[in-house]
Amino acid sequence: MKKIFFFLLISTVSVFAQKIDDGSKHKTVFQFVSGDTLSQKSLINNLKNFKEGWPKSQVEVVFHGNGIFMVMTEKTTFANELQSFVEKEGIQMVVCENTMKQKKIKKEQLLPFMQTVPMGIGEIVIKQEQGWSYIKAGL
Amino acid sequence: MKKIFFFLLISTVSVFAQKIDDGSKHKTVFQFVSGDTLSQKSLINNLKNFKEGWPKSQVEVVFHGNGIFMVMTEKTTFANELQSFVEKEGIQMVVCENTMKQKKIKKEQLLPFMQTVPMGIGEIVIKQEQGWSYIKAGL
Amino acid sequence: MKKIFFFLLISTVSVFAQKIDDGSKHKTVFQFVSGDTLSQKSLINNLKNFKEGWPKSQVEVVFHGNGIFMVMTEKTTFANELQSFVEKEGIQMVVCENTMKQKKIKKEQLLPFMQTVPMGIGEIVIKQEQGWSYIKAGL
Repeated sequence: MKKIFFFLLISTVSVFAQKIDDGSKHKTVFQFVSGDTLSQKSLINNLKNFKEGWPKSQVEVVFHGNGIFMVMTEKTTFANELQSFVEKEGIQMVVCENTMKQKKIKKEQLLPFMQTVPMGIGEIVIKQEQGWSYIKAGL
Repeated sequence: MKKIFFFLLISTVSVFAQKIDDGSKHKTVFQFVSGDTLSQKSLINNLKNFKEGWPKSQVEVVFHGNGIFMVMTEKTTFANELQSFVEKEGIQMVVCENTMKQKKIKKEQLLPFMQTVPMGIGEIVIKQEQGWSYIKAGL
Repeated sequence: MKKIFFFLLISTVSVFAQKIDDGSKHKTVFQFVSGDTLSQKSLINNLKNFKEGWPKSQVEVVFHGNGIFMVMTEKTTFANELQSFVEKEGIQMVVCENTMKQKKIKKEQLLPFMQTVPMGIGEIVIKQEQGWSYIKAGL
């Protein structure tokens, strides 16, 4: 009887713990390299769900290769969603400067709330070294 | 002479160690998000080879996004292979509940041996935090 | 005043530290599974930029699935670039023996500077266990 009570207590605590996980311990770096619209839409969905589930988790998205088109003012169809992620959800969004050089894209052509890093892949490597989990987004 | 003997001994032990690695120390989480048949086939091959090489390794596959079609009773063409992975090989297969909500898919529509998790990507993040290696499957 | 000076000193040291990072502490394993030419070109770009930024970093590329076509003497269009990566940059390039068996490809058909591993995915798992960062290359 005592054992059953104890088991129920543990189970309840465990489910409760999962429910109240606000994500504050979790750090995740997303890589985005795709130029196609379906993958862009899928990234938006991923981030929305992720921040709904874990509102306090630290998230960074690294855009490089053709992924850069999604964060160019003239090309993106997701400016509002991305702005809200950065300004309301605190998601950090960074663009690879190597990609910018290769594609001859200037900082002014990026959405104004984007930051840049010297090497997109280098950034992802550093985050993993610092204990962040890695997710390659896109289809 | 002694040195050569020692070197040969070490080499032999090392090759032997690799040969007898039954995988029991290895834990790997696979992410599957693709809806196309070739990627599905490639996932089946990956898992088959992996479990042949390391029969005792712990493996979990997380299906989300369009990856969910592969584990729906009405849509999959790999029901037998997946069932054998779960029941004979002990591979854990989980589906993202966010994806289910978005695509209006009910638990009854999934293959009966599938389990679910609140967030597919969250599950992959937690596994990485617990020391599991991450593989994004698909082409 | 002292505080400002101290802050400037710290900032300078930090920027300087980033500039002189030759990559020697970083270890990264790339996975390549794609058969399409654009993904192959993207891998070449990734590796070139990476080694320019971090010349002393340890890099290994694991080719499996359709990724193997890129390292077959008869099929590749990147033999020179790959050879230079291996011989000048010290990048290690390995092919999955399971893929070779499945596609009936012999060692002699691979570029002569390629090495092989029993399981491509197993190799990536082992590297992650040893603290290497993981990047899934390709689009």
